[in-house]
Amino acid sequence: MKLTKVISSIKPLNTAAIEKAKKRQAQLTKPAQSLGRLEDIAIQLAGITGESIPSLGKKRVILCAADHGVTAEGVSAFPSAVTPMMVLNFLSGGAAINALSRQAGAEVQVVDVGVASDLPKNKNLISAKIARGTANFKVEPAMTEKQCEAAIELGLQLADKAKKDKVKWVALGEMGIGNTTSAAALMAALLPCAVEDVTGFGTGINREQWLVKCRVIQEGLKLHESYLINPFEALRRLGGLEIAALTGVILGCAKNRIPVVVDGFITSSAFLVAYRLNPLVKDFAFFSHLSEEPGHAKFFHMLETHPLLNLKMRLGEGSGAALALNILEAAVRTHAEMATFESAKVPTKIEKEKKKAKSKR
Amino acid sequence: MKLTKVISSIKPLNTAAIEKAKKRQAQLTKPAQSLGRLEDIAIQLAGITGESIPSLGKKRVILCAADHGVTAEGVSAFPSAVTPMMVLNFLSGGAAINALSRQAGAEVQVVDVGVASDLPKNKNLISAKIARGTANFKVEPAMTEKQCEAAIELGLQLADKAKKDKVKWVALGEMGIGNTTSAAALMAALLPCAVEDVTGFGTGINREQWLVKCRVIQEGLKLHESYLINPFEALRRLGGLEIAALTGVILGCAKNRIPVVVDGFITSSAFLVAYRLNPLVKDFAFFSHLSEEPGHAKFFHMLETHPLLNLKMRLGEGSGAALALNILEAAVRTHAEMATFESAKVPTKIEKEKKKAKSKR
Repeated sequence: MKLTKVISSIKPLNTAAIEKAKKRQAQLTKPAQSLGRLEDIAIQLAGITGESIPSLGKKRVILCAADHGVTAEGVSAFPSAVTPMMVLNFLSGGAAINALSRQAGAEVQVVDVGVASDLPKNKNLISAKIARGTANFKVEPAMTEKQCEAAIELGLQLADKAKKDKVKWVALGEMGIGNTTSAAALMAALLPCAVEDVTGFGTGINREQWLVKCRVIQEGLKLHESYLINPFEALRRLGGLEIAALTGVILGCAKNRIPVVVDGFITSSAFLVAYRLNPLVKDFAFFSHLSEEPGHAKFFHMLETHPLLNLKMRLGEGSGAALALNILEAAVRTHAEMATFESAKVPTKIEKEKKKAKSKR
Repeated sequence: MKLTKVISSIKPLNTAAIEKAKKRQAQLTKPAQSLGRLEDIAIQLAGITGESIPSLGKKRVILCAADHGVTAEGVSAFPSAVTPMMVLNFLSGGAAINALSRQAGAEVQVVDVGVASDLPKNKNLISAKIARGTANFKVEPAMTEKQCEAAIELGLQLADKAKKDKVKWVALGEMGIGNTTSAAALMAALLPCAVEDVTGFGTGINREQWLVKCRVIQEGLKLHESYLINPFEALRRLGGLEIAALTGVILGCAKNRIPVVVDGFITSSAFLVAYRLNPLVKDFAFFSHLSEEPGHAKFFHMLETHPLLNLKMRLGEGSGAALALNILEAAVRTHAEMATFESAKVPTKIEKEKKKAKSKR
């Protein structure tokens, strides 16, 4: 489906299901609101799915990988050669996201959107290479229009496949040496905010390298300045192929009414593009954790929301999203499986009269 | 085993296992420290178990229930009759802790330490009623010496049973209408701090009832003032039978080198007593979440630690602890299952020379 059509096909939450879910929460055997954010999650999910009692089911991490031309500027602590090696690590099950997905009972779908080098055929790898990495955004647009559109379209297809496969939760993951630089540039352009506020130490650069990273982003923003009011152009000029694909996944999931679990700083930059294209996507998203990347807090401040976890993580891959799946499922379980005051014959709150009699005893 | 003997038998963490675990973390395929608190958890667990690579295994929620004489003062929003009804709800699997334990893959051990009314026999209930609730601490000690000792001893036995059953994680849970009042009194006495700072709205009292609750705690503290320097006496005079049992569980687990997951405000008050008896118990504990009870933040401030989750919960039952089990297991999994840089042939950080060559390209 064409991007513009997808954007306009996203419908608001189902308010009837939300009202029913709220009513149910009030009847469950617990003091009102005592499950805190778990209650909000269950209610939001009812609005997404249209089911007042949503069910558990398949979870999928969609992990998009690509390389970044901007690494030529020396913005990363690790060489680009790490991108394909980590993809192989994902495929052999040895990365953090694999361990965390096993813990969550989620499957990992690894997608080569634009890794620079050739990757061996593997039944667990979706080979959808659109380009061998992006161009260096400091000197030219990261992607051509066609490349950016193709990456978004790939994401939309992944969201459609998730729907076809009856996936209940999509968690977003990414891999791409240099992608905190692209993400920071997108955040600076679209939040918007100062480059220094959204530029972090990535996989572990030093202060000197951080200054280089900031300067590179500044120069990129200056070069593309007149186009950045348009979210698609910001994505195309500053983003990455994996980021564009994830933007597509987010929009496609919102269209398909599949809840999306945003991971850290990179997937949040993909979310930000989708959000600027249609703010309704926020209703379909759950924000897993606060990354140690300093720009992530800025992102949440703009969105006026709080992530579920803060465990000082900054790995990406979908690690925080995979970890949050358990909280999201716990919300579904308590909502669906708890007894009501009536069914469990548990007395409810003391009436005023009863209380007075009681305290006189 | 006698309490004093248990207290003195708690040994510090195994530093050799900790060093090995730290070394392993540095070799895993991720930037250093990028898994944040998950890394700290795995390392602490190595110190507890003495295994540099701890393993997954059985999880048990030990849920102790008892009634509180202080409810006669009108300090709770719910009547005491809710305690036995909720115990029945736990036994039939309809409470939040049941749903959350199913989600966590944990078993729930329900223990009647001192519910006021008779409970029907049930194969899933450990009937160990020490008294029919505590006495009203506003006018007399909540427990006799014998009762308090018996409750702690019960907890020690539960910890020994957990060891015998090869339980890898013990999560603490509680039920007892009125127990936020006992917990607040203990916190005020043992942190120590002002009553108003640790007294909350429990299951949902109003402002007027909150003032009554504060006054009752003040009067209790005044009555028992000269004894409260002694943690056992504070527990006996202000605490609850379920709180005393949980203090025993915590001490026993530390002795048995089983990690304990503290839940919310009530189980934290049990932890505080154990901590004042032997501060080493802190090394064996993981703090699951920040309760909405205002005193919980005071507790963490004194302990100089931060709980894993903040989901605005205030239910108790072990709900937060059950929810945190997944994070703790995720830490174990990443530590145990991830590939190393060497095994996955992933290049490590760019050397200074390489980087210089790279940026000239």
